[in-house]
Amino acid sequence: MELITTLPIPARGTLLTAEQAMLLAISEAYKGATGASPNPLVGSVVLDEQSRFLACGYHEFYGGPHAEVNAVKNLANEDLRNAHVFVTLEPCAHEGKTPSCAKMLAKFPIKKVTFGLIDPNPLVAGQGADILRQAGIEAEVFSSANPGLAQEIKIKLEEVCEAFLWNFRHKKTFVALKMASSLDGQVALRSGESQWITGPQSREYVHYLRACYDAILVGKGTIEFDNPSLDIRHSEIKKKNKVVVIDGEGELLTRYAKLKLSTLHANDDVFWCVAKEMREQVEHTLAQNSVRPQIVYVATKVGGDLDLQDLLAQLYTKGLRSALVEGGALTASSFIEHGLVNRLYLFQAPILMGSGGSKSWTETVRVPVMAEKIQLKNPRHLTLGDDFMITGTFKKDL
Amino acid sequence: MELITTLPIPARGTLLTAEQAMLLAISEAYKGATGASPNPLVGSVVLDEQSRFLACGYHEFYGGPHAEVNAVKNLANEDLRNAHVFVTLEPCAHEGKTPSCAKMLAKFPIKKVTFGLIDPNPLVAGQGADILRQAGIEAEVFSSANPGLAQEIKIKLEEVCEAFLWNFRHKKTFVALKMASSLDGQVALRSGESQWITGPQSREYVHYLRACYDAILVGKGTIEFDNPSLDIRHSEIKKKNKVVVIDGEGELLTRYAKLKLSTLHANDDVFWCVAKEMREQVEHTLAQNSVRPQIVYVATKVGGDLDLQDLLAQLYTKGLRSALVEGGALTASSFIEHGLVNRLYLFQAPILMGSGGSKSWTETVRVPVMAEKIQLKNPRHLTLGDDFMITGTFKKDL
Repeated sequence: MELITTLPIPARGTLLTAEQAMLLAISEAYKGATGASPNPLVGSVVLDEQSRFLACGYHEFYGGPHAEVNAVKNLANEDLRNAHVFVTLEPCAHEGKTPSCAKMLAKFPIKKVTFGLIDPNPLVAGQGADILRQAGIEAEVFSSANPGLAQEIKIKLEEVCEAFLWNFRHKKTFVALKMASSLDGQVALRSGESQWITGPQSREYVHYLRACYDAILVGKGTIEFDNPSLDIRHSEIKKKNKVVVIDGEGELLTRYAKLKLSTLHANDDVFWCVAKEMREQVEHTLAQNSVRPQIVYVATKVGGDLDLQDLLAQLYTKGLRSALVEGGALTASSFIEHGLVNRLYLFQAPILMGSGGSKSWTETVRVPVMAEKIQLKNPRHLTLGDDFMITGTFKKDL
Repeated sequence: MELITTLPIPARGTLLTAEQAMLLAISEAYKGATGASPNPLVGSVVLDEQSRFLACGYHEFYGGPHAEVNAVKNLANEDLRNAHVFVTLEPCAHEGKTPSCAKMLAKFPIKKVTFGLIDPNPLVAGQGADILRQAGIEAEVFSSANPGLAQEIKIKLEEVCEAFLWNFRHKKTFVALKMASSLDGQVALRSGESQWITGPQSREYVHYLRACYDAILVGKGTIEFDNPSLDIRHSEIKKKNKVVVIDGEGELLTRYAKLKLSTLHANDDVFWCVAKEMREQVEHTLAQNSVRPQIVYVATKVGGDLDLQDLLAQLYTKGLRSALVEGGALTASSFIEHGLVNRLYLFQAPILMGSGGSKSWTETVRVPVMAEKIQLKNPRHLTLGDDFMITGTFKKDL
């Protein structure tokens, strides 16, 4: 699996600087991207007292051992004498699904723990570090004498647990937008034809991304017209995913109900988002047809459109920490217009579709003056066959 | 100057494979990109009899020494004993501005010359190789036992002298299209505002590109509305460039003539392209105002648009081997629609402009079905600050 961030694991004994160790810990953290949610992605690297690489690990799956535990688990106590542990996030102080990482580390003869970010929860921030200090272990937040590198690492430390930080601070679902376009920004011909813009490597990467987010979010038009398989088909990942369908009028939902279709609506993995005003009418049809899909009734705005802010707050309460918006163009434009996209994944194929007879993915987005252009922050690129993937964030702050 | 192809020059004595030597020769060739025209870009690498790197060189400027001469010029005869010379194009057989390269190489005690491409002129193809063989030097066309690498190198060998090959085979100006867009394919707001989409590193790269092509080509609208400085402003390149203005009706030209403007029209560096039908009217106005700009009268097609094929054939006879089309969007679209763009340089800024209130660079291009999408071949990428430049070719064959 090609990832933007993947660094090779060095041979045991390789000298690493603190910056290299933290970048490696970040790279490790990403390896848990398809499994850790709702826990944050965390990576850890262990160096010996001469700063030589010993081991690394990451938080692989929810409920499983945390990164620090995976990093030290194959090391003997003797290896760990005066060792220096790097971890991307402050070791947790509390006992949850697993024992406290700080308490676990405190049992080893290590000398120092350097962590990237302080726990975002102010109620427990610093408590992990305190447990370590009480056990005679130095505990410090990562810093670097190289200001450029320090800034780059800080950005990456926040990026690697961006959904977790966003969730904690805003109690809303983190939104990533996936788009596949031509070089001239088109996503479908006027006829609706859009298969295939990107190549097989991009398409496999999309399935990897689906596994990285709690749910795939689409507008009802995508289901009606494109009829895509919204599951995960990836050579290395076996995972069942959730789907969110935006169907403000409840039109598609009730039509399906009348057909008594079981595939899309009659399970816990599909969330239908319908305007609050439609509740009575929708429930009536569902009762008549004896189907019980999972519905999120969402507040509307003047004009009748769903209030996407309310929608994201409600999806969060349903346990969806993150969603990958996969279209169509109007759904994408709505999220962009309202400033609700946290991260963009744009897959560009080396083709032109000509905007004279096709649709752009920002059709309803208007920028009145250049000073108000929508800036992608910290753009990163990945080559996928002949295609090119650009990712970055839109939000000023997490 | 950051280039897509630049490889570091190895230390003398470094072992190189034949593939590495040829890739280095290609990388060297590009260093002549701003000076060699109308000669082709050519690079050369010299290895000793144990395949160790000795020296390299490239064709730097028109009329100056060819690549092979620059590669060997600082080597002693003793260095060259049994040496292996790699050159991207068959050493020339004829005496032109400089003596024949094949004859020059034939004087040295070298063992072998491997060249990338046979001379495209069938009348002289193989003659350079014959001169070498007559002097007891092995001469062969480059090949590789690695089919993937062989194909990659063959593509790069053709790319590095693509304008030269195109000129030779089609007797038409080679067309490169430069565009600066947002990630959603927009080049200007509806208001016309477009400054700045890309950042300073992209803009400096555009000035480098201007120096790589014989002329900058723009539609009259670009001059009227954007009033750009169509010269080369680059920290490392001092060069005067030519400008081609497409002004089918001769409207801008006659307006300027009436103003007796000297800046744009009264010199040899500006070519006005005007419809043949307008000749009498235009000449009358120019005579009345005593100005004598350089005009190319171009055939028109049904509907009155300039026949761009004829335009490129005529510009070629004026000595313009290549042109960089710099807009506006309609001019770009015309060249794309008619399949006349050889190479694209797309500078993408990490921003969205929203297609709801802006202009795309392919506004008049229509792709009726996905099977007819316009494919960019051999795409390559270059990061320029936060921007991203994508280049590739549209033509099936050179």
